Amino acid sequence: MIVVPLIERKRDGGVLTPEEWSALVAEYTAGRIPDYQIAALLMAVFMRGLERQELAALTDAMLASGDRLSFDGGGFKVPRIDKHSTGGVGDKVSLVLGPLVAACGIAVPMMSGRGLGHTGGTLDKLEAIPGFRTSLSLAEAKAQVQRLGCVLIGQTAEIAPADRKLYALRDVTATVESIPLISASIMSKKLAEGLNGLVLDVKNGSGAFLPEVDRGLELAKTMIALGEDRGCPTVALITAMDRPLGRACGNVLETEEAILALRGEGPPDLLEVTYALGVEMLIQGGIEKNTKKARKKLETSIESGLAAEKFEQIIEAQGGNPVEVYAAPRTGVVQRVEPRTIGRAIIALGGGRRTVEDTIDPTVGFVITAKPGDKVLEGEPIASVFAKDPDGIRTGFEALAQAIVIGDKLTHKPLPLVSHRVTRAGVEKLGV
Amino acid sequence: MIVVPLIERKRDGGVLTPEEWSALVAEYTAGRIPDYQIAALLMAVFMRGLERQELAALTDAMLASGDRLSFDGGGFKVPRIDKHSTGGVGDKVSLVLGPLVAACGIAVPMMSGRGLGHTGGTLDKLEAIPGFRTSLSLAEAKAQVQRLGCVLIGQTAEIAPADRKLYALRDVTATVESIPLISASIMSKKLAEGLNGLVLDVKNGSGAFLPEVDRGLELAKTMIALGEDRGCPTVALITAMDRPLGRACGNVLETEEAILALRGEGPPDLLEVTYALGVEMLIQGGIEKNTKKARKKLETSIESGLAAEKFEQIIEAQGGNPVEVYAAPRTGVVQRVEPRTIGRAIIALGGGRRTVEDTIDPTVGFVITAKPGDKVLEGEPIASVFAKDPDGIRTGFEALAQAIVIGDKLTHKPLPLVSHRVTRAGVEKLGV
Repeated sequence: MIVVPLIERKRDGGVLTPEEWSALVAEYTAGRIPDYQIAALLMAVFMRGLERQELAALTDAMLASGDRLSFDGGGFKVPRIDKHSTGGVGDKVSLVLGPLVAACGIAVPMMSGRGLGHTGGTLDKLEAIPGFRTSLSLAEAKAQVQRLGCVLIGQTAEIAPADRKLYALRDVTATVESIPLISASIMSKKLAEGLNGLVLDVKNGSGAFLPEVDRGLELAKTMIALGEDRGCPTVALITAMDRPLGRACGNVLETEEAILALRGEGPPDLLEVTYALGVEMLIQGGIEKNTKKARKKLETSIESGLAAEKFEQIIEAQGGNPVEVYAAPRTGVVQRVEPRTIGRAIIALGGGRRTVEDTIDPTVGFVITAKPGDKVLEGEPIASVFAKDPDGIRTGFEALAQAIVIGDKLTHKPLPLVSHRVTRAGVEKLGV
Repeated sequence: MIVVPLIERKRDGGVLTPEEWSALVAEYTAGRIPDYQIAALLMAVFMRGLERQELAALTDAMLASGDRLSFDGGGFKVPRIDKHSTGGVGDKVSLVLGPLVAACGIAVPMMSGRGLGHTGGTLDKLEAIPGFRTSLSLAEAKAQVQRLGCVLIGQTAEIAPADRKLYALRDVTATVESIPLISASIMSKKLAEGLNGLVLDVKNGSGAFLPEVDRGLELAKTMIALGEDRGCPTVALITAMDRPLGRACGNVLETEEAILALRGEGPPDLLEVTYALGVEMLIQGGIEKNTKKARKKLETSIESGLAAEKFEQIIEAQGGNPVEVYAAPRTGVVQRVEPRTIGRAIIALGGGRRTVEDTIDPTVGFVITAKPGDKVLEGEPIASVFAKDPDGIRTGFEALAQAIVIGDKLTHKPLPLVSHRVTRAGVEKLGV
């Protein structure tokens, strides 16, 4: 594909056709257009902006680059609504709003991001809950939405890969703060969630990414048009970020404050913003007809404990790392369980250090029930692997296959558990 | 100090005097001998070994380079015994043994290390307990030993700084696996704990640092001589590390298994090694006279729940990061609480990312109860800082002093919490 004339046209204030945007995104995602050409094009977009139909084509192309959550044809009739925030300090609204609205009968397939710059990220707050898994597959996420009404996950590799690639390039080419590019990025991901409605929390004030209210309103209008044109009713609230929201700032502290808020003990400003967004979601989903009734329903859901219980169900459903059981590959006698192989595998799983500066994941590892001398049957469970992801499970299985040697009979007697006692007087052989 | 003749003498199989060792360690620790000279000397020691009085002088010099835990003159009469292990896979003995023996009336000032190479480290296992602090000062550690009978900490900066410097140099000069150098390193730290006795767990087998039993015995004898000569009765057990100890391998998993063991539900091999070491400690401390009675006392301490309770007390005493309250520096009205300053401070405390690859400490942050418009009195608590260490507390206080602006009256009206509602139909001003 010949890209230079397209960059030139955008540079000079012209318009690219939907077909041209579609081809650009597809070819770039496939690695057939170099970064430097797209970098130049992004800078031209930053300066010149995008016409409405260009933005629509760009967003559609980014959305089409990956999979989406689809609830079609499954008989799942619950309205699906999500919220997006432009990000702030102390903003733990998602942790309260997701379970709260789900407890009121809305399905919330919520895909969130990490903190970058001075703002916090919902994923980081969720991962402050020991064992909480944010990296579910689309199939797992869908199943959880259908079962519990809410899932809280990160952007999967399957969703809008074009956005991932474009975002990384924007981040290093000073083309982040462009309203059309921000809008396409957010909406290509949100529209992939298979939503019936979307509420935007656009932050305003010194702590917001776009501190001026006019820019915030422009962003809101741009995203609303994108959503509505694609059949996803979209509404935005402009909320204050000239001071932190709530009292707690920091991941564990914010998660604790969110749990308090779900019990009705949260700070008033946090609850107020959460209720305002929740009201929009209940009305969009057709659960309630007006603000007053919707607000009442949200308050009741908190007072009754249902909202807090919903969060507990979500934590339980997403808690704990993947664990898989390792079965004996053959019948025989365990000859060896080699500790070095296991120790090195823990490091490979992220649970040990290569250098003293390394940080570790304390949750990974092995439970090995087989000991040298044990008789085992083929297929009998003899160990478990605790890992962060399926790759880790594979690594763990390979280590177990190497460390646990099963043969026809014991070839070496295992060492006595306590073999010698040494004192100043000398060495005493024990052989316990 | 002229170092070359000393290196030459050791290189050629000669002996350095105690005064020479003492001067070498003191000058090197003070930065007045370059690394390359000590590197050459360490390699000569690796090849030629050390005479008994040389090793003693080296150990004493390393011990003298720092502070020690001293219980003299305080009227604290409880016998103080510690255990050291040469390290293995699945070796969570320290976590069981410390509380268990403390519950039997022994004081255990236990200083442990991190996992390196294929072996795990007690510190990493302890830090798998949310909020557990392993970096106490010597004064804090001493107070906890006197109050609870056990403290579980890392090597503080105050203890044997010469060892820290020498160990780092050995690690990068292939001079780690030297029995005199290992012995001096271990014993200079252990002797700084102010002990009345020490039990060594020297691992044997393919997963041990020194896999051959002869080398293990040599190491045991060397350390025993060092301890005994310094008035610290020392005994060693040689235990099996040709397979992992217990079933769990990995930090959280091992901590869980240790807690189970303290409730008497641990794997038999783990309990057996723990009991064998515990028996030595009780006898060394004069709590029991023979193996049978000592073993019975340990078993009773587990069955009664006292050992598990002791571990809970230790966790509680060491749990939770430092938190300090920030007071209003003057009387007045809160004019601003600047979110960006707070967001950036969370990153500085280690709770946010500079790049997407950064790992974060989820526990740090702020709770800020003051909001713009609030009237505050000088000295009134208006925020808290949650940090990893006193440096973090200082960083947090500086951020709060900058972010929270207090003046005579409100100069800017805070933004309305929810200021606008934007839909496809247009912008509605709310001003809630």
